[in-house]
Amino acid sequence: MHEPNPPVLDFWYEFGSNYSYLSVMRIESLAAARGVTVRWRPFLLGPIFREFGWSTSPFVLQKEKGAYVWRDMARLCRKYHLPWRQPTVFPRPAVLPLRVALLGADRPWIGEFSRRIMQRNFVDDREIDTPDAVSDALRALALPAEAILAEAQAVDHKPRLRRQTEEARALGIFGAPTFFVADEMFWGNDRLDDALDFAVARGQ
Amino acid sequence: MHEPNPPVLDFWYEFGSNYSYLSVMRIESLAAARGVTVRWRPFLLGPIFREFGWSTSPFVLQKEKGAYVWRDMARLCRKYHLPWRQPTVFPRPAVLPLRVALLGADRPWIGEFSRRIMQRNFVDDREIDTPDAVSDALRALALPAEAILAEAQAVDHKPRLRRQTEEARALGIFGAPTFFVADEMFWGNDRLDDALDFAVARGQ
Repeated sequence: MHEPNPPVLDFWYEFGSNYSYLSVMRIESLAAARGVTVRWRPFLLGPIFREFGWSTSPFVLQKEKGAYVWRDMARLCRKYHLPWRQPTVFPRPAVLPLRVALLGADRPWIGEFSRRIMQRNFVDDREIDTPDAVSDALRALALPAEAILAEAQAVDHKPRLRRQTEEARALGIFGAPTFFVADEMFWGNDRLDDALDFAVARGQ
Repeated sequence: MHEPNPPVLDFWYEFGSNYSYLSVMRIESLAAARGVTVRWRPFLLGPIFREFGWSTSPFVLQKEKGAYVWRDMARLCRKYHLPWRQPTVFPRPAVLPLRVALLGADRPWIGEFSRRIMQRNFVDDREIDTPDAVSDALRALALPAEAILAEAQAVDHKPRLRRQTEEARALGIFGAPTFFVADEMFWGNDRLDDALDFAVARGQ
């Protein structure tokens, strides 16, 4: 008897990344509609960019592309019916919310927590890398913010985000968002639909 | 009486650019279906990359992205039902065919000529920057290859490609393909449909 595996998609994202914002806001409903399970894989883009010799986002380093990106984001948010405000600080540091996301990656609140952090960065234009920012998001979900923050900042949890980032690097990830279906890589929010279709086709 | 302007799209492309290949092969039929007029704007990417301090394509300079791009191209060509072979030389120089394309930009053969040069680069895996390559494409269209080549290589035509490239730079173009609808920029084959829709909506 043929027992098909449920389709799975690995979703690598960063809270500082504007194109990750688009995918974080869209992925749960798109994946659910196709019966695809999302594995949330938060990681740090900064160390990867630094390995390429870049001190910050290429959207900052390359001014022509940077100017374009904000036009592109405004248009895409209209297309997807997502709220949008160009952040006054970019890219925003996101170590603490990423540590919490890594902690919650297999918990039912990961999607909503991630959307709230993204909304704070790309709609409310507020800092996200503070205990207050993360607590606000957790409390809004009726979660024990202090306990989760303590767990995220514990000595034994801290190295996990670094290891996850090293794993991203080893997979050849060079930007965010990136999707994997088994070892097939899809880069960028523009490929989210193709990646989900690929997951479904592979599972059949 | 309201006299709507016919929608127009400026299409900036380079024969050495793999993502330009996708748009060159697709644009005429997609634009015709929406009643959009395409203005073909061939230009040189090399001088623009060099202004960014890059000696060649970022797909060569950044090996992670380079490895990904060939996977992405194979998948996209399957999706669009386009033939595809990864070129053994990349990016291929394309000055001569670009000069000819600039000469033919307003002539009825520009689309088919451009597709033939692209097919030679990304399907036949052959050099495109030679008089033979360009003559083959022109003759296949029953055009006077020798006369056109002579015109393209004439002293007064040669500076036009440089000027066209300077215009691209002044517009903030940083890669290919790039589409403009009036002063609205769309970068990459992934935005071709959005750019055409924008042209139609603007014309209404």
